[in-house]
Amino acid sequence: MTERLSAQFAFLQEIDRLKGVLRATPIGDNSRKENSAEHSWHIAMYALVLADQAGPEVDIARVIKMLLLHDIVEIDAGDAPIHASYDVAAQEAREQAAATRLFGLLPDDQATEFRAIWDEFEAAESPDAVFAKSIDRVQPLLLNLASGGGSWTDYDVTLDQIDTRVGTKVKRGAPAVWTHVRARVAAFFSS
Amino acid sequence: MTERLSAQFAFLQEIDRLKGVLRATPIGDNSRKENSAEHSWHIAMYALVLADQAGPEVDIARVIKMLLLHDIVEIDAGDAPIHASYDVAAQEAREQAAATRLFGLLPDDQATEFRAIWDEFEAAESPDAVFAKSIDRVQPLLLNLASGGGSWTDYDVTLDQIDTRVGTKVKRGAPAVWTHVRARVAAFFSS
Repeated sequence: MTERLSAQFAFLQEIDRLKGVLRATPIGDNSRKENSAEHSWHIAMYALVLADQAGPEVDIARVIKMLLLHDIVEIDAGDAPIHASYDVAAQEAREQAAATRLFGLLPDDQATEFRAIWDEFEAAESPDAVFAKSIDRVQPLLLNLASGGGSWTDYDVTLDQIDTRVGTKVKRGAPAVWTHVRARVAAFFSS
Repeated sequence: MTERLSAQFAFLQEIDRLKGVLRATPIGDNSRKENSAEHSWHIAMYALVLADQAGPEVDIARVIKMLLLHDIVEIDAGDAPIHASYDVAAQEAREQAAATRLFGLLPDDQATEFRAIWDEFEAAESPDAVFAKSIDRVQPLLLNLASGGGSWTDYDVTLDQIDTRVGTKVKRGAPAVWTHVRARVAAFFSS
């Protein structure tokens, strides 16, 4: 029991470092960049609130678990902004190594379980993962709208690029959400 | 549909402000105070990892939902540190008003559902709420240990006070966790 709890608390302490990983998107009041820990909370809330947009085959409790876990690898690998250019293969290798190290801090049964959920999210094929990816992509759009441009301004992004890089993924898991949000994003770009 | 989504996004944008509510506890590297949004993510992870410490009557998915929601009222009411002295009745009144305003941004069915979960957490009587309260109390102990004292130093807290104010609540929902963590806290105070 004590050995198991020691391993669990070592993991819970190590993931505290996700609070220091900064993302490209600012928080809504534009005072600073968002960190990946608070982003993870916010998208878990997105999944909870927008649950009725998911198909009947989606298990929201499982999606929330997936979203709580999905960014932990950034502790070692950093955040790769969607509109930045970077070496995709090298970033993937860093994330794989990070998953091995970080989930490996847990007792074996939990390490295996969490790694499988993270792998499923990354593969983006199961209904839960497709919905989780939609939610993960839509939240930064709303923060950019709230902050008056955010990472769109920093990376000189066009509406066409948002349609290609973000829209395709949001639409796949939550089509009505995309219709709603796309109209607001288009209005921002035409103003 | 559009009216429902508009209300849901208004709520999701408003709760972004939880990222600006500071707690008494520092993050693990002691570089700054923790905010309530990242705290909410961290304790959801605590609940997920320590799920096997909960009794069989506890529904962990529901506990996670409860913990994701539990601090949203702090957007209006602020955080009331456990070791600080403050007017408990006045703070409760502020939190009730905050719950009415914030959950009231949602469509009626979700406003009712979220408010009921928050009320259940506050009442601390159901098995889910008792476990959620244990988790909420144990995480700051680990951050204070990691940061070399944290809010214990700031508020001049003794081990007896931790036993009374924190231990009773952790022990109620997760007794083996309390045995484990209490030993580490006692070692810190005797060093």
